Amino acid sequence: MNRWLLPQGIEDVLPERAEAIEGLRRRVLDLYHRWGYALIMPPEVEFLDSLLTGVGGDLSLRTMKVVDQASGHLMGFRADMTPQVARVDANRLEGEGPRRLCYAGSVLRAHPDNYGRSRAPLQIGAEVFGVAGPTADAEVIGLMAATLSEVGIRDFTLDLGHVGLYRALVKALDADADSEARLRDAVRRKDREALGETLEELGADADVRRALEVLPTLHGGMEVLDEARSCAVNTEAAQALDGLEVLVEHLHRRDLGDHLSFDLGEVRGYDYHTGPVFSAYVSGQGEAVFYGGRYDGIGGAFGRSRPATGISGDLKLLADLMPREGAAPAGVLAPAEGPDALQRAIQSLRAQGVRVVQALEGLSEADFQAEARRLGCAQILVHDEGQGWRTKPVEPQADE
Amino acid sequence: MNRWLLPQGIEDVLPERAEAIEGLRRRVLDLYHRWGYALIMPPEVEFLDSLLTGVGGDLSLRTMKVVDQASGHLMGFRADMTPQVARVDANRLEGEGPRRLCYAGSVLRAHPDNYGRSRAPLQIGAEVFGVAGPTADAEVIGLMAATLSEVGIRDFTLDLGHVGLYRALVKALDADADSEARLRDAVRRKDREALGETLEELGADADVRRALEVLPTLHGGMEVLDEARSCAVNTEAAQALDGLEVLVEHLHRRDLGDHLSFDLGEVRGYDYHTGPVFSAYVSGQGEAVFYGGRYDGIGGAFGRSRPATGISGDLKLLADLMPREGAAPAGVLAPAEGPDALQRAIQSLRAQGVRVVQALEGLSEADFQAEARRLGCAQILVHDEGQGWRTKPVEPQADE
Repeated sequence: MNRWLLPQGIEDVLPERAEAIEGLRRRVLDLYHRWGYALIMPPEVEFLDSLLTGVGGDLSLRTMKVVDQASGHLMGFRADMTPQVARVDANRLEGEGPRRLCYAGSVLRAHPDNYGRSRAPLQIGAEVFGVAGPTADAEVIGLMAATLSEVGIRDFTLDLGHVGLYRALVKALDADADSEARLRDAVRRKDREALGETLEELGADADVRRALEVLPTLHGGMEVLDEARSCAVNTEAAQALDGLEVLVEHLHRRDLGDHLSFDLGEVRGYDYHTGPVFSAYVSGQGEAVFYGGRYDGIGGAFGRSRPATGISGDLKLLADLMPREGAAPAGVLAPAEGPDALQRAIQSLRAQGVRVVQALEGLSEADFQAEARRLGCAQILVHDEGQGWRTKPVEPQADE
Repeated sequence: MNRWLLPQGIEDVLPERAEAIEGLRRRVLDLYHRWGYALIMPPEVEFLDSLLTGVGGDLSLRTMKVVDQASGHLMGFRADMTPQVARVDANRLEGEGPRRLCYAGSVLRAHPDNYGRSRAPLQIGAEVFGVAGPTADAEVIGLMAATLSEVGIRDFTLDLGHVGLYRALVKALDADADSEARLRDAVRRKDREALGETLEELGADADVRRALEVLPTLHGGMEVLDEARSCAVNTEAAQALDGLEVLVEHLHRRDLGDHLSFDLGEVRGYDYHTGPVFSAYVSGQGEAVFYGGRYDGIGGAFGRSRPATGISGDLKLLADLMPREGAAPAGVLAPAEGPDALQRAIQSLRAQGVRVVQALEGLSEADFQAEARRLGCAQILVHDEGQGWRTKPVEPQADE
């Protein structure tokens, strides 16, 4: 094995891309600050018990585990920061009332995924705790759109689902965990045959059966909401659809109506989502680029059960969607260590915010110009009798 | 075990501290950019072979290890980013000539340390590759001072050592690895007795023996450099001292002379350092707050051996040294969803960079004022007949 080989899905981020990611990271965190979200930094590792509480088995499979040398207990490297933020809301922060939190940090996945995406995304996100109504869902969906706007994306689709609908139908079935998992898998893959077989085994009532068969077909525009009414076989199902309709009204008031699409067979994150789920799609990307959903009550395991909703995505992926302009030459190349006056001139330029790279060895005039071009400097610092140290433009490279 | 318990040395960073760390992170990365350092982001995990190549056994003990599910090979969570940056210089980036790289990221330590410090520091640092001379060491030491300046620390000590001196004396001894480790431990702990015993066992020549006994006493001001001359028992030792003297001249030209102190018995990082080593101390902190040193040739294992020097430290620790002012109330509390004009007013304020928190439920006038105070807003958004939506100051809390 070559020493410089990296694990599959793990990568070095080199300067040009790193600058793009860093710039976007700042803009998005500033955006979240302007919307009133307070920054927190949960740790990269925690005891596995804390990390996986209330979030279901999928996350456990995706989590890298390591024994803590200090305690002998099993720790995990977070694969998702959302449950950590719920833990912080539940028992690290005081006070009732709505709380808005945001975060940006590395997460790690135990396995590479099927889409060739990074196993080490830079997750950025925002969560609202303590508000059960659609106002909070509408706000975070608005913030998702604003996040894409910071990336420079105006053309996107907001795909809405509601796990409450599927949840209500399954409840009517009285299925065991195993059958439910097979059922959910069939719905997720929109596999009619497997769905029919499982429903047959379960001896589902005709109306529930028909509703679950219709569910995977409920994707498209606003008309889906009307079509879905035929699935409202019980009170919970009807409530889920009512909730979704109110949310849609809110989103229209936020000028997001034109971006909406629906997929009521979307059961992603069913393990911990409890209400509306939302995904942002952009053209050319098969998978969603930002995700979110309601996950009421996760904090209960940590001593305080609160309503919760939020969004998150991978900053690295978003940064790769930005148009990348090669940086124009900027800043000044200064000669290597010389008289005190040179150091003072450099210090003064840097204090003004100018990028000043200082050569680390004496160079001929031609080499100095070449070095300035190599380092992407637009100017060089030169000494003039009488005028002292001053900047002048780098000469363009001679054509050969 | 309580689910909300975190492993020893692992912590949640909550809003006020997180904002301080984030602000400092930006200022320090901007500083490194102004000095010509390009940002990179190496991955949090790598194969253990890459992570530990050329850096000695100490780092292996400090590294958390996990089996890669995709390849079956052992991976490690980085405990130090410097060797990663050397790998990137050696085989990820093209071109000869000096290269400056900087980085900021989480590292993890397998064990809590003895000083109660974090096991998950946020390492920030800067490295220069391709320059063997003291100019590069002087630049990174200058950058270390500038980093402390961004923290607001003017009063600090730059402690210089040079592992080349110890290295030259050990070479003259022809000691095996085990004896050398005991010797180094005695020097590091300034333990005269253990040092004498080990030297006795090794049958050291009188002059080498005397030099190694003097070494741990060589700490203090500029006078140390003269006293050290008695240790220059061979050419390598003399060269190390010459190198240190030239570096000191450079630092005087950078106006850092008043900050200097010396500790030639400092053998920290001997595993991979090869020349001058430097540490920044501030009053009230027993341990150094920023570190650095020369580590030529590490990249050799990755296909390209280059001179290298650099600095790094823990941003969380530095942020805790900053005077923390509670943030003054800022921004605007807006009412919950209402007419389109309200959303437009909010959007327009945010576009101007104003922090606008929107209430998530309808509130009475008194509750609205209280909510604004709770959220740290200085103003509220209200509707006036004729004037439309406008901001007005939050009323001070009534004394009771």
